[in-house]
Amino acid sequence: MGRVTERRRVTRVRAGVVSARPDTLVAEEPLEIRLAGKPLAITMRTPGDDFALAAGFLVSEGVLASADDVRSIVYCAGATDDGSNTYNVVDVRLADGVALPDFTLERNVYTSSSCGLCGKASLDAVRTTTRHPLADTPPLRLSPALLSALPNRLRAAQRVFDRTGGLHAAALFSETGELLDIREDVGRHNAVDKLVGRALTDARLPLSRAILLVSGRASFELAQKAAMAGIPVLAAVSAPSSLAVDLAAETGMTLVGFLRGESMNVYAGEERLVLEGAEGPGSQSADKAAM
Amino acid sequence: MGRVTERRRVTRVRAGVVSARPDTLVAEEPLEIRLAGKPLAITMRTPGDDFALAAGFLVSEGVLASADDVRSIVYCAGATDDGSNTYNVVDVRLADGVALPDFTLERNVYTSSSCGLCGKASLDAVRTTTRHPLADTPPLRLSPALLSALPNRLRAAQRVFDRTGGLHAAALFSETGELLDIREDVGRHNAVDKLVGRALTDARLPLSRAILLVSGRASFELAQKAAMAGIPVLAAVSAPSSLAVDLAAETGMTLVGFLRGESMNVYAGEERLVLEGAEGPGSQSADKAAM
Repeated sequence: MGRVTERRRVTRVRAGVVSARPDTLVAEEPLEIRLAGKPLAITMRTPGDDFALAAGFLVSEGVLASADDVRSIVYCAGATDDGSNTYNVVDVRLADGVALPDFTLERNVYTSSSCGLCGKASLDAVRTTTRHPLADTPPLRLSPALLSALPNRLRAAQRVFDRTGGLHAAALFSETGELLDIREDVGRHNAVDKLVGRALTDARLPLSRAILLVSGRASFELAQKAAMAGIPVLAAVSAPSSLAVDLAAETGMTLVGFLRGESMNVYAGEERLVLEGAEGPGSQSADKAAM
Repeated sequence: MGRVTERRRVTRVRAGVVSARPDTLVAEEPLEIRLAGKPLAITMRTPGDDFALAAGFLVSEGVLASADDVRSIVYCAGATDDGSNTYNVVDVRLADGVALPDFTLERNVYTSSSCGLCGKASLDAVRTTTRHPLADTPPLRLSPALLSALPNRLRAAQRVFDRTGGLHAAALFSETGELLDIREDVGRHNAVDKLVGRALTDARLPLSRAILLVSGRASFELAQKAAMAGIPVLAAVSAPSSLAVDLAAETGMTLVGFLRGESMNVYAGEERLVLEGAEGPGSQSADKAAM
């Protein structure tokens, strides 16, 4: 079974000085996710939490919405010629009555649309397939100070990154800023899938009062995963993409980017933030109107 | 047709001061890649260089090896109900005699193997499917100083990153450190595909004397794309994964990570580096043996 880190020999060059030493690297291995025995997707991931990864991936794809939807998740022994288990193939069986999806395009079913492929179609697909529409009642009210404290908590909890420098992290926080869960993976989408999959099996979906923090950028894919898990707030240390912002706006999600120190940019859903001195909603100053 | 950047309104918080202003975001839109009319993959990408992206993706998958393999690459008009062109669907037609691949798993055909899925199978698949085995003759000889100069050249050439902070970059350099080409994209794999696809249509494959520099980490997927294009040197500003290092070692590629200032780590293929004061190949000091 795979390990989270592996050791390799490395030649170090430091200002002209050359030395050789062992180095710790983040482990990367393929994981094939099967649904009822049928191969559905392969992702390159850091081994560990594989059942959670598979479950979270299927939440993102709209197949699973609660723990009751899952009959079993197992490693496929016998996937190799010699019958040994590589622990790199996972099969998910659905509970009675849960429909097998009709995947026309294996990996990205939600973006495939007969009406033509465009950003709008991608947004529509999320809105129509989500089983957990955002519904934080009463609405979350978060202070900038609370959000500003989260990246340091994420960083302090990252165990593997310190040794490898090669991992993306994703973490769930409560509305009071308490760290609920953290996952690290060579792929940022895997880290989020692992968080969501664990929440599914623990019967914590939808995550309607949670904040999702990611260590890097906020792409459409990450915003989509948050939306499908019912997470109302997505915060990223770096930049969001245009389509991530559009998805957040359309689903009512709060999207915060460039969360660094006491600074942040709020791209959507600013009504969840307690912003003193903010101009009121609907006010249009000259420089905004120039946009 | 999509744009590389888009404008959105953002609420900025800076040490308690709240303001609203327009912000420039990296554009992200889905691209569906079709092969002879059949949907093959969807990737979320930054619009632009879409034909190069499709071509480079097919080089990575082992379908294309030279410009002669391509009959045509076109945007699919009529992919929408109203017949308009979203410029988000690209169809690649192969030249006569070029075999259509047998894709059992759409997106990641190379990692699917009847012998069981594992890292070794992934490595074997690259070795057996590449049309451009690494062959730099005479072997490249690179000084650390030459490599150290590349990240600043990449950064200076990044046009969109400065405005958005949201783009991955990949660049090709000559063996004398000259910038040959650079691409930026919301997805790092797309940036590399765009470089390789452009090289294919310009009849510059294999890139047997080029250095590929990526702005982030070196994953298996990026190492695999370099290998399929015949690129002998992959350098990354951040960490590599274990499987990227293994692939580099197996294919004879030089893999450099943490390329920052005058420092770097060489994980494979150090024979291409002119390392003064280095211990000779095969020498085993005590601390190395301890690994």
